[in-house]
Amino acid sequence: MYSHSLLKPDGRQMTLYSRCPISEAIIATSPSKEPVRANPHLRWHPLRGEWVAYASHRQGRTFLPPPEYNPLAPSRNPDFPTELPVGKYDVAVFQNRFPSMVTTANNPPDCIVETLPANGACEVVVFTQDARASLSSLTVEHLDLILQVWSDRTEVLGKNPQIQYVLPFENKGVEVGVTLHHPHGQIYAYPFIPPVPAQMLEQQQRYYQEHKRGLLADLIEKEIADNQRIIYEDEDAIAFVPVCARYPYEVWVAPKQAVATFSDLSLEQRWGIAKALKTVTLKYDGLWNRPFPYLMSWFQAPTDGLAHPEAHLHAQFYPPYRTSDRLKYLAGTELAAGMFANDALPEEKAKELQAVNVNLRMPVSA
Amino acid sequence: MYSHSLLKPDGRQMTLYSRCPISEAIIATSPSKEPVRANPHLRWHPLRGEWVAYASHRQGRTFLPPPEYNPLAPSRNPDFPTELPVGKYDVAVFQNRFPSMVTTANNPPDCIVETLPANGACEVVVFTQDARASLSSLTVEHLDLILQVWSDRTEVLGKNPQIQYVLPFENKGVEVGVTLHHPHGQIYAYPFIPPVPAQMLEQQQRYYQEHKRGLLADLIEKEIADNQRIIYEDEDAIAFVPVCARYPYEVWVAPKQAVATFSDLSLEQRWGIAKALKTVTLKYDGLWNRPFPYLMSWFQAPTDGLAHPEAHLHAQFYPPYRTSDRLKYLAGTELAAGMFANDALPEEKAKELQAVNVNLRMPVSA
Repeated sequence: MYSHSLLKPDGRQMTLYSRCPISEAIIATSPSKEPVRANPHLRWHPLRGEWVAYASHRQGRTFLPPPEYNPLAPSRNPDFPTELPVGKYDVAVFQNRFPSMVTTANNPPDCIVETLPANGACEVVVFTQDARASLSSLTVEHLDLILQVWSDRTEVLGKNPQIQYVLPFENKGVEVGVTLHHPHGQIYAYPFIPPVPAQMLEQQQRYYQEHKRGLLADLIEKEIADNQRIIYEDEDAIAFVPVCARYPYEVWVAPKQAVATFSDLSLEQRWGIAKALKTVTLKYDGLWNRPFPYLMSWFQAPTDGLAHPEAHLHAQFYPPYRTSDRLKYLAGTELAAGMFANDALPEEKAKELQAVNVNLRMPVSA
Repeated sequence: MYSHSLLKPDGRQMTLYSRCPISEAIIATSPSKEPVRANPHLRWHPLRGEWVAYASHRQGRTFLPPPEYNPLAPSRNPDFPTELPVGKYDVAVFQNRFPSMVTTANNPPDCIVETLPANGACEVVVFTQDARASLSSLTVEHLDLILQVWSDRTEVLGKNPQIQYVLPFENKGVEVGVTLHHPHGQIYAYPFIPPVPAQMLEQQQRYYQEHKRGLLADLIEKEIADNQRIIYEDEDAIAFVPVCARYPYEVWVAPKQAVATFSDLSLEQRWGIAKALKTVTLKYDGLWNRPFPYLMSWFQAPTDGLAHPEAHLHAQFYPPYRTSDRLKYLAGTELAAGMFANDALPEEKAKELQAVNVNLRMPVSA
């Protein structure tokens, strides 16, 4: 993998990634030349015992682009520059213009609860220059590259001593609030281990101490033996509807053997995960013959400098649909109580996905 | 308050509540005479360390009512009976036809994770017979009655030794997935203390042990002294946008002095909370001159038979909007990481709500 780092006219950092060498002549662009002056802060939520981020920098913008303007497409119209430069590269990563966390946040004013500067990072990962692609239509080779990009970003961001946890994710589809359909994900890098990863790591740690084995690796073994909910399996990687799915079409993707972070993946594991990713997203899109929305998140070990033998890199997909025409709204029991109620059995939903035929080598139009 | 318990033709229990005596001649109705054969179960989510409920009983129904059919209106057409009988009463509570938990669940089949019968209860609370009303349009007297109903349901459900936590809530508006606009809420009664209340109680318990004072009562004192985010205040009750709001228009309603459950409220506290509820919902509806959607949840002490001096009954409102035309979607950082990112300061949103003039005595059309 090749990479090339640039500075945008507004001061934001950008890195291009490619399987081929990248020209040094590429010049970074930005929709605006105005420096991003975000100064987000954190407040302590005493009742929940967690941090909440506040970023009130979204100001009225005078930027009025033409209707076909796509800020994530390569910048071909000099009157309306985009986030992506013209040139040969596969993936672009840059700092979000409207970040909830920045590496340069100042101390917030006094408040009746504890506060902190929101020192972290929010990055955008443009998966491809092709606005009409999706993870399902990209080649396995391209998905393998994206895994390397997530690996590199975790290392780069994790080197910052302020940052303790790096979370790559993709919100996909209008149903989850995404209006920009150019294939892209985000990376949030937190100055603490956020509540959900912390909770999962705690369960994994407790299990590891008791059994000297990994919680997720053992669950994967049981899923394989049970053989009811598997969506993809090869020697190194697996995708399955977990027995304890909270969302009807929830799927997890993982290497069978635990690795702590993206960088710890062997070439074979990475390739297996790329194939699993392609299979899951193809099956999602094939289920109702239309683009399938989801939130995909990647959980890995914290970048806190400690050993995390309990951690097991994996992705969790949370699709918002419960049937082809019904969304699963998170309401009382999910948001207020924290108990998910699922009106479909994971076994049934897995069967639906298992029945979708996919061909990893066939080009697909999005 | 008067109450009268009935049995529906399909075997479900119903209780009517009123400020006046209720006729014994009222006969319970039901959209279907078929007994509800729900048999939900719980599965342990080992990675999160929490229970997930599965109820796959939603079967194809042949019931095809006319388009104007409202299952929560009083039953006036014998061809299409509803959930509510005709007669004089103010509030009706009945067991949900499609429950995620029931008191009679059987042992689930073997599974690769721990399972339990989902022994709890799911009730529907119809706030009024008037399909076009809302909490904001009901009188303070009527809201005071609803508080008594929640108190009675907590006591009745909490007496069941299987049930450890009773959570009344209201999902309101199509934006949170509600298609039935007749004003109603729900009550979920859990066979365990669910994760979110458990987390809050843990914080409160720790604070109580350390300070010999209530966490929420102390926060309320600080909110009053800070005087920036208060929406309603009288001698006994308060409503405010919390300093650590996770949703832009989040509001909490509480008695100033801690009480553990609805039944512990003094008459004055209950009346104050009824006024606070009316004020908050009127301000919500007045903000953009249209019905304002939200999830409202009531947190109280568990019904686990233990003393909970740390508990402080209160409501949290989570509205899905961040501006009049933009929803706050829960995506990567909220759902995957558990860190909420709010692009508005609680102080700013509180000002918007403070600026809405309301008159508690004026009749309001919904």
